[in-house]
Amino acid sequence: MAVAPEARRPIGQGGRSPGSLRPERWNEIVDAAGDVFDEKGYAAARIEDIAARVGLLKGSLYYYIDSKEDLLFAIVDGNHSRGIVVVEEGAALESADPPTRLGAFVERWIGILGANPGYAAIAERDLRRLSPERQAIVMDKRARIHRFVRDIVEDGIADGSFDAGIDPGIVTNNVFDVLNGISQWFHPARPLTYEQLAEHVRCFVLRGLGADPETIGPALP
Amino acid sequence: MAVAPEARRPIGQGGRSPGSLRPERWNEIVDAAGDVFDEKGYAAARIEDIAARVGLLKGSLYYYIDSKEDLLFAIVDGNHSRGIVVVEEGAALESADPPTRLGAFVERWIGILGANPGYAAIAERDLRRLSPERQAIVMDKRARIHRFVRDIVEDGIADGSFDAGIDPGIVTNNVFDVLNGISQWFHPARPLTYEQLAEHVRCFVLRGLGADPETIGPALP
Repeated sequence: MAVAPEARRPIGQGGRSPGSLRPERWNEIVDAAGDVFDEKGYAAARIEDIAARVGLLKGSLYYYIDSKEDLLFAIVDGNHSRGIVVVEEGAALESADPPTRLGAFVERWIGILGANPGYAAIAERDLRRLSPERQAIVMDKRARIHRFVRDIVEDGIADGSFDAGIDPGIVTNNVFDVLNGISQWFHPARPLTYEQLAEHVRCFVLRGLGADPETIGPALP
Repeated sequence: MAVAPEARRPIGQGGRSPGSLRPERWNEIVDAAGDVFDEKGYAAARIEDIAARVGLLKGSLYYYIDSKEDLLFAIVDGNHSRGIVVVEEGAALESADPPTRLGAFVERWIGILGANPGYAAIAERDLRRLSPERQAIVMDKRARIHRFVRDIVEDGIADGSFDAGIDPGIVTNNVFDVLNGISQWFHPARPLTYEQLAEHVRCFVLRGLGADPETIGPALP
């Protein structure tokens, strides 16, 4: 059965899947692509290698995708879609104080990292290899996530939870540089879990913003 | 006059230059390469474009280099060599307290960024495009710079200037993620200079480590 080009295009939003493929099967293919991109690097990764990991021939995999970039997009966009979920969950905390809201965001963000460590590393490293149109889709999500954190920072400056002298634009970028950098160096094989890492990073970030130690919560272990 | 291959190889250490070329002329060529890499991206940059900017024909530029990667190495390695200079200057501050030493490092590091903004962005983005041998040379410098900061963090934990609960490995990585991220988003066209940026980042980092506000020094503007 032929699949219309539009329906075949993977959109990587974690629920829908291309054409006639079961979502579980599509996720297996995307996971296999992520493993191969991680091991060989995107440029050197071959469709044959990805297909072989999921028991397909190269030609059969091309039935579902047009190019290797479709799989990269599924990974990068899917990772950012998970970030949007964190933002949407965070909106439910609106009545909490800004340090609590930012702390929850950092913990959930690092939770996503822990659940998909390879995906986050690829999303940071290979975003620029996507077509301009696909980069724009991802950058829209990034902008929305960035705005969410910046709003919390501005709320915290306004209500005195954070230092009035900080520049919200700068610290928001600092916070994302800390969060996005983690996937490039953290290996849970270190004697530390993602949960413990999240606790350290939450404290580093909230202190950096000048939050009252009382609001940061329990001291580090 | 023929130039021996070894002498022709640019080593980008800010003083020596390939073969018979005057250092000033070599620096002009490397600067032109940096501009072209920045504008077009390394992959799309053409030797012709670089040569044209310094009034050379492509063939004449190839007299001094073997490949485009020679110019990338000059930029990336040169940028890290400037980092080593900051470390060496920082060693002179050994008798100061850890927050002062780390604060001085952050300020000088961002000073380098301000002097060569395009270089730092290329160094972060395109490091992986160097040959494994050249990446190893750069990674050795990176490790030395990393060790310098980690030593300060450990000294600060030992003498109580920083929070005893922090993990020196994690926060050192957080600090470098903040510093290395800057070149990807900061534009001095914003109404803020590199000096003001450095002051914000210094406070963010020192607070993040739990330094006493007294030792951080003057409040933000």
